[in-house]
Amino acid sequence: MKLASLKNDSRDGKLVVVTTDLSRCRAVPEIARTLQTALDNWKAKAPLLAQAARELNSNANMGEPYREENAHSPLPRAFQWADGSAYVNHVELVRKARKAEMPASFWTDPLMYQGGSDNFLAPHDPIAIADEAYGIDMEGEIAVIIDDVPMGADLDQAAASVRLIMIANDVSLRGLIPAELGKGFGFFHAKPSSAFSPVAVTPDELGPNWQDSKLTLPLLVDYNGSPFGKANAGIDMTFNFAELIRHAAKTRPLCAGTIIGSGTVSNKLEEGPGKAISEGGAGYACIAEIRMIETIETGAPITPFMKFGDTVRIEMLDAAGNSIFGAIQQTVEKYAPSKTN
Amino acid sequence: MKLASLKNDSRDGKLVVVTTDLSRCRAVPEIARTLQTALDNWKAKAPLLAQAARELNSNANMGEPYREENAHSPLPRAFQWADGSAYVNHVELVRKARKAEMPASFWTDPLMYQGGSDNFLAPHDPIAIADEAYGIDMEGEIAVIIDDVPMGADLDQAAASVRLIMIANDVSLRGLIPAELGKGFGFFHAKPSSAFSPVAVTPDELGPNWQDSKLTLPLLVDYNGSPFGKANAGIDMTFNFAELIRHAAKTRPLCAGTIIGSGTVSNKLEEGPGKAISEGGAGYACIAEIRMIETIETGAPITPFMKFGDTVRIEMLDAAGNSIFGAIQQTVEKYAPSKTN
Repeated sequence: MKLASLKNDSRDGKLVVVTTDLSRCRAVPEIARTLQTALDNWKAKAPLLAQAARELNSNANMGEPYREENAHSPLPRAFQWADGSAYVNHVELVRKARKAEMPASFWTDPLMYQGGSDNFLAPHDPIAIADEAYGIDMEGEIAVIIDDVPMGADLDQAAASVRLIMIANDVSLRGLIPAELGKGFGFFHAKPSSAFSPVAVTPDELGPNWQDSKLTLPLLVDYNGSPFGKANAGIDMTFNFAELIRHAAKTRPLCAGTIIGSGTVSNKLEEGPGKAISEGGAGYACIAEIRMIETIETGAPITPFMKFGDTVRIEMLDAAGNSIFGAIQQTVEKYAPSKTN
Repeated sequence: MKLASLKNDSRDGKLVVVTTDLSRCRAVPEIARTLQTALDNWKAKAPLLAQAARELNSNANMGEPYREENAHSPLPRAFQWADGSAYVNHVELVRKARKAEMPASFWTDPLMYQGGSDNFLAPHDPIAIADEAYGIDMEGEIAVIIDDVPMGADLDQAAASVRLIMIANDVSLRGLIPAELGKGFGFFHAKPSSAFSPVAVTPDELGPNWQDSKLTLPLLVDYNGSPFGKANAGIDMTFNFAELIRHAAKTRPLCAGTIIGSGTVSNKLEEGPGKAISEGGAGYACIAEIRMIETIETGAPITPFMKFGDTVRIEMLDAAGNSIFGAIQQTVEKYAPSKTN
């Protein structure tokens, strides 16, 4: 089934089931008013939601038109957002770009940071940033929403805990990262609010494209209307979601509704560090990577980070060319602080 | 007023108002069933909760006995836990203990890490850890729960956003910190679930002891039944809560219910790096600090980190000797993973 949270006057939005073709939706207050409420009691709620989705899909007169502009992130706020860096190729390139060595252990021990989860952007919301000099970048990712996971969970428990799958834009402020890394306490300013796809889907919606805790389809990233990335999320994923979840649960339990991210999708492919789509490559899911390639090829980065007015669109299509999750589509704009709470 | 969340069969507990003397409490489902619900609409809910608290305090026949063993953390799970290191003395000592230099900027630019907030321990819950070799430590802290704060908030907005104050035990696994710092993505395994005091109080409950966004009373830390720390939370706090909140809100808004922590309370005092209570000093709010002092004095740490069976108690008393927040009292025990979800 496919689920979304429409914007309303509440902080958590209104849970709706959405048709597979993303054309219609239906609120299900008799089952759950919000997605977190459903996740809090997934065992009981999931069969009811699945039934509602089947009814909606089979009856063209049911529900109302689904408009993704009205969608918030499926969880407008969450109790946890823990983002891995499973495409180690990306990590290696970004490190090279800031002239930092990558320890060999990064290939065997997952990197993961604790992200802010209290205020996600809606998938079509602008990315409001105070200063272009922060080095505004997108990061196209896969993310999963999980059920309760006990501390010390093994790989089987971790794999079985995946309830919903989304795509994500983990907005990053590259210019603020080196100073925060130097402080040793992880990212804080460098990771403003992230955005998730309008729709979250259960693993069965992905059929054979969800296998071994990986999503084996290209993540399409368009930048200012042109194809920028189409890396396959199932390729070069050094740690699958089961491994990321097990890592997150090593010293503490994880609450239902926790979101685990893959990190920027990145394909190394045979040709080396990656090539632009225009050159026959899989392109990039963030600007930092192309800047690294440019540095390798010309001695300096050429592509600037995002400026006010720049737009990113992130989407994933099924084998028939239909959008699975709907699209994240966001334009960067200048943030002007308000002086009232 | 004083608020608590009693354990029940829900994930967020049952909100109760508690008498000032912590003797009685009363559920207020007609106002809000959970603390997060109240925080989501604080402007409307706070006056109603305050009225309920006044009624409870003035009528000895109202409510039921309050037993802090039944209390969960005031927010059993939260949308954000961002922990500062405002007592820079502590940071300097801990860094010295692991033979790392502290950059001078730490005195002017707050350190803050994004903590896990999806599963807090109840204040009397055991601290269940799989392995003593992780270097189990307590960290006695002050924490505030804030209202919505816009991105780019100034100090006045930040100071005015404080809704409730608690004390905290930010459990830390010292043995896992160096490796995580080396990875550069911040703490994850090294910071298992934190615990907060049974009761959260509004700033007015603290009278003159809440001033300039600081709590000016000693934080009492007992270890295995003996006084271990009594550092005054208002002394040597390099960054007050307004500064910590402004820091947290630099590149993103903060959602109501966000918890901001002070970091380990630590007094440098005149005598240098701190002295044990038995030697007339203010003692320590974590074991890492006394180990550092021991290293300075004898060449090696003497006090071991916490072992299974060790108990920490953290409390704060008002001028009349009454407990303000109730006590955090936790015993370390061995965690045995379950193999079912």
